[in-house]
Amino acid sequence: MMSFESTFKIRSFHTDSFGHVNNARYLELLEEARWQFAEHHGLIELLNEEQLGFIIMQMNLRFRFPIVEGDTIQVFTSLVTLGTAVGEVEQLIKKQGTGKLAAKSMFTFVLIDRHSGASVPIEGKIRELLLHIIQPKKGSGEIP
Amino acid sequence: MMSFESTFKIRSFHTDSFGHVNNARYLELLEEARWQFAEHHGLIELLNEEQLGFIIMQMNLRFRFPIVEGDTIQVFTSLVTLGTAVGEVEQLIKKQGTGKLAAKSMFTFVLIDRHSGASVPIEGKIRELLLHIIQPKKGSGEIP
Amino acid sequence: MMSFESTFKIRSFHTDSFGHVNNARYLELLEEARWQFAEHHGLIELLNEEQLGFIIMQMNLRFRFPIVEGDTIQVFTSLVTLGTAVGEVEQLIKKQGTGKLAAKSMFTFVLIDRHSGASVPIEGKIRELLLHIIQPKKGSGEIP
Amino acid sequence: MMSFESTFKIRSFHTDSFGHVNNARYLELLEEARWQFAEHHGLIELLNEEQLGFIIMQMNLRFRFPIVEGDTIQVFTSLVTLGTAVGEVEQLIKKQGTGKLAAKSMFTFVLIDRHSGASVPIEGKIRELLLHIIQPKKGSGEIP
Repeated sequence: MMSFESTFKIRSFHTDSFGHVNNARYLELLEEARWQFAEHHGLIELLNEEQLGFIIMQMNLRFRFPIVEGDTIQVFTSLVTLGTAVGEVEQLIKKQGTGKLAAKSMFTFVLIDRHSGASVPIEGKIRELLLHIIQPKKGSGEIP
Repeated sequence: MMSFESTFKIRSFHTDSFGHVNNARYLELLEEARWQFAEHHGLIELLNEEQLGFIIMQMNLRFRFPIVEGDTIQVFTSLVTLGTAVGEVEQLIKKQGTGKLAAKSMFTFVLIDRHSGASVPIEGKIRELLLHIIQPKKGSGEIP
Repeated sequence: MMSFESTFKIRSFHTDSFGHVNNARYLELLEEARWQFAEHHGLIELLNEEQLGFIIMQMNLRFRFPIVEGDTIQVFTSLVTLGTAVGEVEQLIKKQGTGKLAAKSMFTFVLIDRHSGASVPIEGKIRELLLHIIQPKKGSGEIP
Repeated sequence: MMSFESTFKIRSFHTDSFGHVNNARYLELLEEARWQFAEHHGLIELLNEEQLGFIIMQMNLRFRFPIVEGDTIQVFTSLVTLGTAVGEVEQLIKKQGTGKLAAKSMFTFVLIDRHSGASVPIEGKIRELLLHIIQPKKGSGEIP
């Protein structure tokens, strides 16, 4: 299973007075990429049917070089682990046309009931779907 | 009745690659100033009690000169008109230490029921409170 | 000349606790649509060549009904007036699949030198290009 | 040396359609708290004098429970490690009035020359100042 690719063109409003994409903006672009990934795999309909949602419990991001206005970035999103209650999504950011890794990130999520807000096990149709799209990382599972 | 003053220090993340505070950031700072205004006047408790909320139907902003990182801005918020269903809040932005007007804005709001989303008349305790804090503009009521 | 169409899928992070797209988010989506419009017409290269940029001096937005998570919006961007120093861009927001106008907006811009920050006349190649893509509004030019 | 405390009132525009403060908003609130911390310690003037700036190379955040509209949060910011080129800032988020830890985070930063964008050693007056305000973590230095 391949990772899912999203592309974004970086605009003036994504950057701060350093001329770099700001941390908070990265998180919005990565969240948009996770939504596109979920949509592509038919996950959003399933979540809406069952009134469930994913929320992020932990995140780790490493930046290698800054992205600036005018750059186009590719975000590669993959589901890399799936436990009974918790899963992990890896997202890599590359600068288009260079193949260079600008940032890597790992997001740990849980499933919640949208009404109660309580965490629920990842099971049934949603688990089935996730097992189809999971792409375990080679090696240790550690963020290198 | 005096207008209510909020102050904000402008950070790198408020500005874009031009080095100016971005339009969307202005709206967040102005919204925060309106929340502080509402809180100061005891309006938030009343809205929560009755499960009502204000939403913006129209806005008009004029920018005179750009605000940059390191500037401190003062936002002066006043309720300037109040109809049966609609009111107007004026917000002026000055650069601290200069007295200079950097931007002026007018927001037209309606009251909605937070459950149904439907617009409701501005009446009862909320109207009473707003009539206490209204400060009609001198002159035409037009944004000059 | 037709207006330029951009589409956006509304995500959870675009909305606030009312469940509506927040004002500041509208401005980001509209700014992104203006960048796409400028890119489509070859304007960004020209601006970069001459180290110029457009900045917004005034904006007026009217909201007719709220947009919520899961909606897809179409933004229609047109250049509607062009003076020697100032121009106006109109942007209409429709909810896809309904044809209904959710919001309309007008942005007044000037051209600045990116180094000095000073406003400069809209002339030369940039004026030529804008005269090709201008689409004057029928009627009064007023926001109805 | 005590950690520095910032407080923020959570507004509707900080939350998403789940009613929770969104990830990207947390990063903006944490960045604002780091600016207040730097300002409080006289660091911003020093950085401006030498045309230097801190940028984030890595961040790790863990969320324990969601923060919602109307909550007030306290952010406790401390410098916990300082190497020759890299340092770490820890930020804890507590819900006011409960003492409960809502989130914890660690940010790894480097110092850059604002003109060249190149990373520079943390030395001279800036190092001196940071050595005054550092507050090493008890125990392993690991995020538990």
